[in-house]
Amino acid sequence: MKQFRFRILHEDKKTKARVGEIRTPHGVIKTPAFVPVGTQASVKSLTPDEIKSSGTEIFFVNTYHMYLRPGLDVIKKFGGLHRFMGWDGPIITDSGGFQVFSLGRSDLVKITDDGVEFRSHWDGSKHLFTPESAMEWQWRLGSDIHIAFDDCTAYGVTHEKARTSMERTHRWAVRSKEANAKFKKGLTFSDEKVKPLENYYQALYGVVQGSVFEDLRKESAMFISFMDFDGIAIGGVAVGESKKEMVNILDWVVPILPAEKPRHLLGVGEIDDIFALVAAGMDTFDCVLPTRMARMGRVYINTTNGKWELDITKKEYAEDTKPIDSVCQCYTCEHFSRAYIQHLFRVKELLAYRLATIHNVYFINSLLSDIRQAIADGSLLDLAKQWL
Amino acid sequence: MKQFRFRILHEDKKTKARVGEIRTPHGVIKTPAFVPVGTQASVKSLTPDEIKSSGTEIFFVNTYHMYLRPGLDVIKKFGGLHRFMGWDGPIITDSGGFQVFSLGRSDLVKITDDGVEFRSHWDGSKHLFTPESAMEWQWRLGSDIHIAFDDCTAYGVTHEKARTSMERTHRWAVRSKEANAKFKKGLTFSDEKVKPLENYYQALYGVVQGSVFEDLRKESAMFISFMDFDGIAIGGVAVGESKKEMVNILDWVVPILPAEKPRHLLGVGEIDDIFALVAAGMDTFDCVLPTRMARMGRVYINTTNGKWELDITKKEYAEDTKPIDSVCQCYTCEHFSRAYIQHLFRVKELLAYRLATIHNVYFINSLLSDIRQAIADGSLLDLAKQWL
Repeated sequence: MKQFRFRILHEDKKTKARVGEIRTPHGVIKTPAFVPVGTQASVKSLTPDEIKSSGTEIFFVNTYHMYLRPGLDVIKKFGGLHRFMGWDGPIITDSGGFQVFSLGRSDLVKITDDGVEFRSHWDGSKHLFTPESAMEWQWRLGSDIHIAFDDCTAYGVTHEKARTSMERTHRWAVRSKEANAKFKKGLTFSDEKVKPLENYYQALYGVVQGSVFEDLRKESAMFISFMDFDGIAIGGVAVGESKKEMVNILDWVVPILPAEKPRHLLGVGEIDDIFALVAAGMDTFDCVLPTRMARMGRVYINTTNGKWELDITKKEYAEDTKPIDSVCQCYTCEHFSRAYIQHLFRVKELLAYRLATIHNVYFINSLLSDIRQAIADGSLLDLAKQWL
Repeated sequence: MKQFRFRILHEDKKTKARVGEIRTPHGVIKTPAFVPVGTQASVKSLTPDEIKSSGTEIFFVNTYHMYLRPGLDVIKKFGGLHRFMGWDGPIITDSGGFQVFSLGRSDLVKITDDGVEFRSHWDGSKHLFTPESAMEWQWRLGSDIHIAFDDCTAYGVTHEKARTSMERTHRWAVRSKEANAKFKKGLTFSDEKVKPLENYYQALYGVVQGSVFEDLRKESAMFISFMDFDGIAIGGVAVGESKKEMVNILDWVVPILPAEKPRHLLGVGEIDDIFALVAAGMDTFDCVLPTRMARMGRVYINTTNGKWELDITKKEYAEDTKPIDSVCQCYTCEHFSRAYIQHLFRVKELLAYRLATIHNVYFINSLLSDIRQAIADGSLLDLAKQWL
């Protein structure tokens, strides 16, 4: 059975940053790594070939969305997500916890200790997510890295509510790990015998919650670390707290985490966050913003003045024969001008969204490559200074 | 100055079909050829690389759209459409005549003998298209094949109205040819000196009109043939007449046309039309339907029962692990299943439109390749029988 392994190759002396590699059954991820989001089994507008050639080694798929559409039966028929969507590299899935959190705002959801009952955002049908079912579904998806089912705590709640939510996350972490272990052994589960899709290891990350409270975050970090997951995800960030609060959370949590395990930050990844989260010791992080912004025409450029974003839809680029970024080597910058891309956005041509997405993903991956090099060289803070 | 040349390589003995090649300054087009439409300087959702790898050798761009957005000044700055959009193969542009016809229905347009005054469908601004300006704009676009400015006759008009419209087309054909000739010599025109963008020949096709009336179509065919254009386009079809009427028009017109000139059919190209128009002696034909249908999930399949279209959005394909078409060698069929493509359509992922477009364009180009082979082999009618 192909295994899951994390190795640290370099550690920065001035920060908690580290360079490493995560080996999964579907390939290696050089860390720190940006993880684009392919919510519905598609990194919007890109083919798997383009995902790869933009430097991406792993991306994120949402179990909640897969469960509703196309449905797990379809995925099962294909023998997993990799074959369903034609991607042979590593995939990370979440547990549905975050979608439940998002839906929570809209009264479509009822949380009990057993799990979460919710109504589909597509057709209103009723469904139940439990730690056990979330593990079963991720097993069926066959992703390389699974996330434990957690109760994502909203921003701005009281300490008491944050504790209740965190404790539920911990109970669900125990149940998630037990369920995952059963699948590894191929035991009967749910309504039928669930066998491993293929003979490969499917890793499980536990989730640290605790909102913006130092004592809770530390308690959660200890609890989850103690459980000996394959890796650790930090959740309940990017839910409304300030960037300062996010850094505080990482500062409280990271020193407690076992150094030898990979750490994922859920839902963060704008250019200005990246240096902070890498310096705080995170290894991977997923975020929809770089791809979402691309589809709005907001593209990244190399800069030393702190303005790394350009709105390509602005009139001033209408006759600009230069590429989006003059040193970028992405497919878009090697073939197309700002003027042409602006034209495509202006007349709403589908190609616009793709060209901008290819650029933003390549650009971030390229920045991460520079960051890995800088950590190895001991020049991370210099690189950060240059950018921020 | 690189020239324009048409050679006939094979002629079918049982029909008027012929295999040939059109040499243009930007490359060779094997005929009969399907010409996809890239209305706004983009074959919707495809990069130029994908246009090429789907077997396309030339595509169509609408001068009217380019004139309004991005505007001719932008194109001029790039030295023409090829460089603006990153395509180094042949391009054919129209004169704006057909768009004027479409707008005619919406009272945005006033036709006089001088030309056509219309309001932009974007912002309502007023513009004048004349044979001279239509030629100047196509010259600036730098397409390999230009179309003379014509008055596209609506379907269902009286013989008298069709004659008036045809005669206007003829007067405009004379003015188009004179204007084009001036640009070839680099003479001063309009408000400034217009020089050839590069030292290459830009061919001009005259347009045959005459609605569904035999005498008018024949008169128009004679008039336009006599004018010695580089090629001949047949216009005013696919405007509402039946498929039988279209075939009649071709049967009247084609025998009059000089055999040694390439013939283009404007706006026709569904699978069932293709055999008819090829057999009637057409060399190239453009149509938006194969790409438009793709974006609606209607994709082509090889078949012998006359049903060459499949609606991939239908529930029955939800778990179908086969490619769209089992013998198709397009990128889409080589990488993705019907189930995955249906999923993408169902959840409205941008990738859906591209994968279906790649397939439909490749499929038609592949059919045309079979048709060229069948003409050379003398088996065109057998191939047609197999399909229809």
